[in-house]
Amino acid sequence: MVRAAVLGASGYLGGELLRLLSLHPKIEVAQVFCRSHAERTVGEVHPNLERSVELKFESDPQRVDTDLAFVAEPALSSMKIVGALLDRGVRVIDLGPDYRFTDANVFRATYGADHADQSHLAEAVYGLPELFRERLRSARLVANPGCYATATLLALWPLVRHDLLTGPVVVDAKSGSSGAGAAPTAASHHPEAALSVVPYGLPVHRHLPEIRTVLAQVGPEPPTITFVPHLVPLVRGILCSIYPTLSSSTTSTSLAELYTSVYRGSPFVRVGGVPKLPWATGTNRCYLSATQVGDAPVVFSALDNLGKGGAAQAVQNANVLFGFDERTGLEISGFGV
Amino acid sequence: MVRAAVLGASGYLGGELLRLLSLHPKIEVAQVFCRSHAERTVGEVHPNLERSVELKFESDPQRVDTDLAFVAEPALSSMKIVGALLDRGVRVIDLGPDYRFTDANVFRATYGADHADQSHLAEAVYGLPELFRERLRSARLVANPGCYATATLLALWPLVRHDLLTGPVVVDAKSGSSGAGAAPTAASHHPEAALSVVPYGLPVHRHLPEIRTVLAQVGPEPPTITFVPHLVPLVRGILCSIYPTLSSSTTSTSLAELYTSVYRGSPFVRVGGVPKLPWATGTNRCYLSATQVGDAPVVFSALDNLGKGGAAQAVQNANVLFGFDERTGLEISGFGV
Amino acid sequence: MVRAAVLGASGYLGGELLRLLSLHPKIEVAQVFCRSHAERTVGEVHPNLERSVELKFESDPQRVDTDLAFVAEPALSSMKIVGALLDRGVRVIDLGPDYRFTDANVFRATYGADHADQSHLAEAVYGLPELFRERLRSARLVANPGCYATATLLALWPLVRHDLLTGPVVVDAKSGSSGAGAAPTAASHHPEAALSVVPYGLPVHRHLPEIRTVLAQVGPEPPTITFVPHLVPLVRGILCSIYPTLSSSTTSTSLAELYTSVYRGSPFVRVGGVPKLPWATGTNRCYLSATQVGDAPVVFSALDNLGKGGAAQAVQNANVLFGFDERTGLEISGFGV
Amino acid sequence: MVRAAVLGASGYLGGELLRLLSLHPKIEVAQVFCRSHAERTVGEVHPNLERSVELKFESDPQRVDTDLAFVAEPALSSMKIVGALLDRGVRVIDLGPDYRFTDANVFRATYGADHADQSHLAEAVYGLPELFRERLRSARLVANPGCYATATLLALWPLVRHDLLTGPVVVDAKSGSSGAGAAPTAASHHPEAALSVVPYGLPVHRHLPEIRTVLAQVGPEPPTITFVPHLVPLVRGILCSIYPTLSSSTTSTSLAELYTSVYRGSPFVRVGGVPKLPWATGTNRCYLSATQVGDAPVVFSALDNLGKGGAAQAVQNANVLFGFDERTGLEISGFGV
Repeated sequence: MVRAAVLGASGYLGGELLRLLSLHPKIEVAQVFCRSHAERTVGEVHPNLERSVELKFESDPQRVDTDLAFVAEPALSSMKIVGALLDRGVRVIDLGPDYRFTDANVFRATYGADHADQSHLAEAVYGLPELFRERLRSARLVANPGCYATATLLALWPLVRHDLLTGPVVVDAKSGSSGAGAAPTAASHHPEAALSVVPYGLPVHRHLPEIRTVLAQVGPEPPTITFVPHLVPLVRGILCSIYPTLSSSTTSTSLAELYTSVYRGSPFVRVGGVPKLPWATGTNRCYLSATQVGDAPVVFSALDNLGKGGAAQAVQNANVLFGFDERTGLEISGFGV
Repeated sequence: MVRAAVLGASGYLGGELLRLLSLHPKIEVAQVFCRSHAERTVGEVHPNLERSVELKFESDPQRVDTDLAFVAEPALSSMKIVGALLDRGVRVIDLGPDYRFTDANVFRATYGADHADQSHLAEAVYGLPELFRERLRSARLVANPGCYATATLLALWPLVRHDLLTGPVVVDAKSGSSGAGAAPTAASHHPEAALSVVPYGLPVHRHLPEIRTVLAQVGPEPPTITFVPHLVPLVRGILCSIYPTLSSSTTSTSLAELYTSVYRGSPFVRVGGVPKLPWATGTNRCYLSATQVGDAPVVFSALDNLGKGGAAQAVQNANVLFGFDERTGLEISGFGV
Repeated sequence: MVRAAVLGASGYLGGELLRLLSLHPKIEVAQVFCRSHAERTVGEVHPNLERSVELKFESDPQRVDTDLAFVAEPALSSMKIVGALLDRGVRVIDLGPDYRFTDANVFRATYGADHADQSHLAEAVYGLPELFRERLRSARLVANPGCYATATLLALWPLVRHDLLTGPVVVDAKSGSSGAGAAPTAASHHPEAALSVVPYGLPVHRHLPEIRTVLAQVGPEPPTITFVPHLVPLVRGILCSIYPTLSSSTTSTSLAELYTSVYRGSPFVRVGGVPKLPWATGTNRCYLSATQVGDAPVVFSALDNLGKGGAAQAVQNANVLFGFDERTGLEISGFGV
Repeated sequence: MVRAAVLGASGYLGGELLRLLSLHPKIEVAQVFCRSHAERTVGEVHPNLERSVELKFESDPQRVDTDLAFVAEPALSSMKIVGALLDRGVRVIDLGPDYRFTDANVFRATYGADHADQSHLAEAVYGLPELFRERLRSARLVANPGCYATATLLALWPLVRHDLLTGPVVVDAKSGSSGAGAAPTAASHHPEAALSVVPYGLPVHRHLPEIRTVLAQVGPEPPTITFVPHLVPLVRGILCSIYPTLSSSTTSTSLAELYTSVYRGSPFVRVGGVPKLPWATGTNRCYLSATQVGDAPVVFSALDNLGKGGAAQAVQNANVLFGFDERTGLEISGFGV
């Protein structure tokens, strides 16, 4: 049994992680940390987990005493605590953005602060197993991807791998409100969010530099990407509609074959027809559909931002790190409705 | 042309009021006030009103210089400014709760503060024209009713008027999120509100003492009322499902006749079958349906909390105050969908 | 390993059942039946189950060849096929209403047709383990309860068991749209359902006679119950707000103690504060909150109509029938959001 | 007073048209037609219009006896009745697609049937006043545009007029469910639509040939347009996110100036920041925001599909036809929330 700690366990990602891990047969959550909820039980903070996770929040991350730590802290916080965890031999999966970049300058330009732990930044492996499975097996530090980045990269990867991208890419992303986190804001106020589709994060959402960083690692210089996220009146779920420019003519059939072939060994990526978001809800699945619309190829990518776009993917990464079957603890299917 | 000022015009009620008044043929909004938005235009604060209301916010209510003032300030604020307005000869329609009580002790028990303007409290007329039309004609100060109170009182009034209530009444109310106002809170955070029906305001919501105060004015000692509001995933709209105990046996037919008869002269109260909330959206209408369910009578009451439950009713009250046809500026029908 | 068949597996309840059973460690779905989808795979009909349930639909229920059959057929259909299953030694859990009544006359009055299998009607055990656990252990035929009936009966049972109910009960129920099934109707058309709260099923919803039938089995003559279901703009979830009349004075504390005590041995009934529906989504849990609102007791009951209100409860019943721990395959927690 | 008839008045577009016309000071609805509701009152079919529109449905369009007819019939129906109306001197605004094409072959390819009234097809003027105001003044027959086409054409027009489009255009459209009409379908079944964002109408939605037809009339050969509509969980409203390829470099400032300038004389087109859909709800407004996202221009276009995308635009066209101020009867502002 792998013993794990969850730091920053009071948010939506932390809660979903605890929910998933409570059923994992080979990973046991032994400690949970959250400064602002110290001494409260998990059930008090996450009533849905009452009796399923019987732990009290601790406040001092110095007391982590496990094989593995999931860090679900906000941006700019993880980088202050991850180093100490690694030094004590704890393997780390960071669900925040601090270790997703290879270039500290890009990090600074994106998050507006110098990186406080550049030595480990270089070591971190980007936690998208479908692209980096081999490197992840021996990683000490995993940078779990952002939700939009996961949906976009899984959709673009077959095109990049076969070097088909030759011009601009438009990514029109639609996300539910849970992606914004548990703190109330004007944008996520129900009366403002429930009856609209609202483009936001313009001109440059923080996930775009993340996407470009990863693409640059796995292929040629990436093309121009126009990335526009929209808040839609859903709680969970992201649908990205992706409009790439390709070098050669494709058909719906050739695209389907390409995607099916690339993801043959990846149990969580499902290639098929136009997806519905509930199929992904609560799961680690990403549904991809690549098709020809008139003369142009279009790729749809659907996942649960708290699932494959967050907590479930962190569990998948833990499975890879510790040599378990990737599917362990993540077998559940999503909803029909 | 009646010249009007709107104080506290930056919230949802204030915005809806400006929207309605912008089409009123006999009332002209000449001044808008809001301390926190002073010098900004209405269009900057309410983009839906750009070009329709071309005014700048002023900050000092001492400068009100109109025939009529609508006060859409939060609880405990109106009572500090209404007196001065009245002293200067301005008639006032207060959309907040400060003047809805006849007994300062009930006000204190409900809102947790002493009333700062008890002399005018005694003078205020409760702005439900269907019950107090005559007294309103000559009122200087109108206490515009709360949204739940409007829906409940209009539903109970025919039973009270005919002295049919003999035992406990259950009011199970369902409201959209705009009733909570424009300030983000944990309860109105989209991820928390969008997938649930949440009872709140327990054990005693503030509209219950308001309802009891009014019933005591128009009938015998009111019965026990159990009032439970629920937040539902809508933005606008309240549906109250009301379960009264009656003295004598009723039928669906006798109930329909009773309600139709009582509201014959009230153009905004519509008696009929089970209502749908969009019919009331953006309007001053309240839809009532009184029917027999098994052995028991049930009354459904539907309105727009920002409409008949707030801003539109304030316009209706203004029409009554100034002797206009009640329907002036309020003719629009609600939506089919 | 218990071998199971699912009949009527193409609807929402059938799909949810397959989803849950795909993870059950002691029950294996060996056959699925649906006349209208014969020869299609489960994945074609329920894309969320692709690769999780690798079976083809069969059309002829005569070919059921398993230890257990879940029957998720519409009303009036089950009673034509259950007898033959029982005769061949198959234990049956019927998710429809056909066997929920003890009196064939009540069935006829409620469903408008004579019961076609009265001999087995008498034998069926009502599948609410919290009330009938002992009788269920040896049952051949289980009548899985309706969604509203489950929510209402679990809320009323502590009051009935302690003989506290002395007068009328109001049940104001709010349900998501999946309860209406997979066939499009005017009431469930998105433009009609998404912006309203709509009372329906009046004057007498079919679950009320079911509730009364069960109450009469476990306590004294039940009181008058006014049951009004409302369609709310959710997909999954039922919240019942229940207003009982009690014989003696209660407090929030005494009510909480009573409910906690009655459900001590029932792992799926959770007693606590005001519940949120996502906590129950996808699970077999029912959240109860009993509290005093002013002078009156109010009980809130929340569950997933496809979970504890349907498919998950059927799995719980199967666990009871075959002597497994009730929680087997039903351990997952619901969502925080 | 212009006397008008509405044919096909029982659907969502017809209902919205009656709602708007009930307040029009210069157009009076004198007749309503609907074969399937003959002899019923408007209030029975559209309860929101009870007392506002006091007419009975007639069944025989031969009895139209007005100056103007709005035809809100389904595709392929209008073309069978419009000719006779014109012959009797009735001016016609057709809200369906039958007269939106200049080329009968494109009509056949798009709607799968030969055009039954080609002589009038040639005469029809496309009812987008912002582009065709002059030609509309004297039109006998107006083809009121489709909802997506209106949103897209108003967004592209400034770029076409200044000949800036040089390469492919992506139109990612998000629509509420009322656009699909009043008849229940699997796609609009609430449980299927409420928790997802669903691309549909692929590979070629019928509004794309309409858009291309109009662009070809007002500019050079239009570029490749990839048009992907998505159903979002809203009832009213369309947001199009449009990604054009332009000939020269633009900035957010230059784009804003361009759009502001082109629409200076068009009171219903509002150019500004990122729009919210409620601002347009129930109105004839289209909100445009043209901005630079990274290196690429993006245009957002928001309207109410039943408003500027349908019934309100039909009223605007009527105003143009009869020489009224375009704004007559369409002054109302949309919602803040």
